[in-house]
Amino acid sequence: MVKIGVDIFGGDYAPESTLEGAILAAQELPDDAKIVCIGDREVIEKYARSKHFDVSKWEIVHTTESIDMGDNPSKAYQQKSDASIPLGFKLLKSGKIHGFASAGNTGAMMVGAMMVIKAIPGIIRPAIATFIPTTSETPILLLDVGLNPDAKPDVLVQYGIMGSLYMEHVFNIKQPRVALLNIGSEEEKGNLLTKATYPLMRDCKCINFVGNVEGHDFFSNEKADVMVCDGFVGNIILKSSEVIYDLVKSRDIHDEFFEKFNYENFGGTPILGINGVAVIGHGISSGKAIKNMILQTYHVIHANLVEKLTEAFKEYTVA
Amino acid sequence: MVKIGVDIFGGDYAPESTLEGAILAAQELPDDAKIVCIGDREVIEKYARSKHFDVSKWEIVHTTESIDMGDNPSKAYQQKSDASIPLGFKLLKSGKIHGFASAGNTGAMMVGAMMVIKAIPGIIRPAIATFIPTTSETPILLLDVGLNPDAKPDVLVQYGIMGSLYMEHVFNIKQPRVALLNIGSEEEKGNLLTKATYPLMRDCKCINFVGNVEGHDFFSNEKADVMVCDGFVGNIILKSSEVIYDLVKSRDIHDEFFEKFNYENFGGTPILGINGVAVIGHGISSGKAIKNMILQTYHVIHANLVEKLTEAFKEYTVA
Repeated sequence: MVKIGVDIFGGDYAPESTLEGAILAAQELPDDAKIVCIGDREVIEKYARSKHFDVSKWEIVHTTESIDMGDNPSKAYQQKSDASIPLGFKLLKSGKIHGFASAGNTGAMMVGAMMVIKAIPGIIRPAIATFIPTTSETPILLLDVGLNPDAKPDVLVQYGIMGSLYMEHVFNIKQPRVALLNIGSEEEKGNLLTKATYPLMRDCKCINFVGNVEGHDFFSNEKADVMVCDGFVGNIILKSSEVIYDLVKSRDIHDEFFEKFNYENFGGTPILGINGVAVIGHGISSGKAIKNMILQTYHVIHANLVEKLTEAFKEYTVA
Repeated sequence: MVKIGVDIFGGDYAPESTLEGAILAAQELPDDAKIVCIGDREVIEKYARSKHFDVSKWEIVHTTESIDMGDNPSKAYQQKSDASIPLGFKLLKSGKIHGFASAGNTGAMMVGAMMVIKAIPGIIRPAIATFIPTTSETPILLLDVGLNPDAKPDVLVQYGIMGSLYMEHVFNIKQPRVALLNIGSEEEKGNLLTKATYPLMRDCKCINFVGNVEGHDFFSNEKADVMVCDGFVGNIILKSSEVIYDLVKSRDIHDEFFEKFNYENFGGTPILGINGVAVIGHGISSGKAIKNMILQTYHVIHANLVEKLTEAFKEYTVA
């Protein structure tokens, strides 16, 4: 049985949004999956009853404490050790759940990921990834989008490997094309970082490196399945894509392609490179977003991504 | 009389696009302005006749040579010294024209700007800027968008000053708000570059520094009139905005706001920080884009931007 821990306190509209999402996800998840609600038992049971949802389909791990959005992540993590996020990571660490998802305090999620679950041996720096929508069915995986604003070349190569394994095992793409996000297509173009990274990626045998891509290569998977950049660039791209979607909505434009910019469709950002499955949701998550965050967590668990990454990095050292 | 040199060979659709643009611009420019067409006299006169345009409204500087898109910029600049771009910079240097605009080989434009016209004393590195459309009337000026992919903190501060003077004198904005493009709003957020730049910008008396902005602050001038970043980040933003517009068009979306993403509306990218007015157009420029490139060149000349920059940097040294 695949057990997915969900932080019922996590998100600006929790617990309504998280419980709504947990009900929606329970209806879509396969039989081998079970949602573990981490939150106030009374609230959870009351909500389920009000929606005529059979609460026995969930497991409940009771806590009344939560780390709030405004809390200092590190301090709160220590002081509120029974809050839903630290509790989720405890359960994940001990193997009682196989993945943990929360749309709560991102900093606290990172503390749990880095301090409790920790990086996979050989991985210099974990990363967070986002999906760039494309005009075809498969999105582009872009990483890192904010964890390491000053990534080094060997770190970017590892992002390429992580992204490649993600797209191979979660999206079933054979030999995903990995590209370096740059400001020119030729090898010698770029800033100091990308110029130093290019030859390392080209010589890395674990990935299908297809060279540089540029800003105009977004939104089409003509060239690449995975795009690698430092967390500074990635974070700016991530946030500007979100605002494009807000503008499309506010201008009352209804379009199938631009609808893909809706973060709700993916629901969450996986933390790649740690010894367990943890997915971070958007603070403003709706029920639909929470549902998709849970489904995504399931897919990552089901793809055995952590094992694949662990295996790959056993053999890998940067040249 | 303000004389604006236009490279008639410049652009994928030249000379039709450039001559069409030059006619359109001639109709809109005030009486104190004159277009100087740099190109093949016979072709120019024939085109003007075919459009019933009074060719005496232009000056013509005759040349049959051009630097092509595929030419190596530095080599071609030396070997083809009578080509339209080197000729344009010669005229600009000697004061025979007051501004020079070309949608031709960008590298050759940069060679002319840096080697012939040269940086204004005190300016460490010139920059190229783009306009980010907003939901209100005034765009945001974003710089640098590609000249310096590895800008240093003192260079970013100077970009702030240049951008501020541009928006003040070309767009008539009083005390333009200058922001640092970053991945968090707090001072201590960012990468090594932005963390080192923040205090320098805050302490710079020549600008109205409003702190950090993020990717979601694009497309609205709620927070800033000028956004400063290194050329790597800026170039990726520039190119991804262009592809957003292509997608909007290809999906047959007609929307007033997204229409502002059309590069044709601005037509060109000014090179800021050199001893003269040079504007680079997009290779794919249409007649409308060329027209706007010429009008923009006029506005920059008319605003005495080079003099304002020269004056500002006489007094300025980085703390």
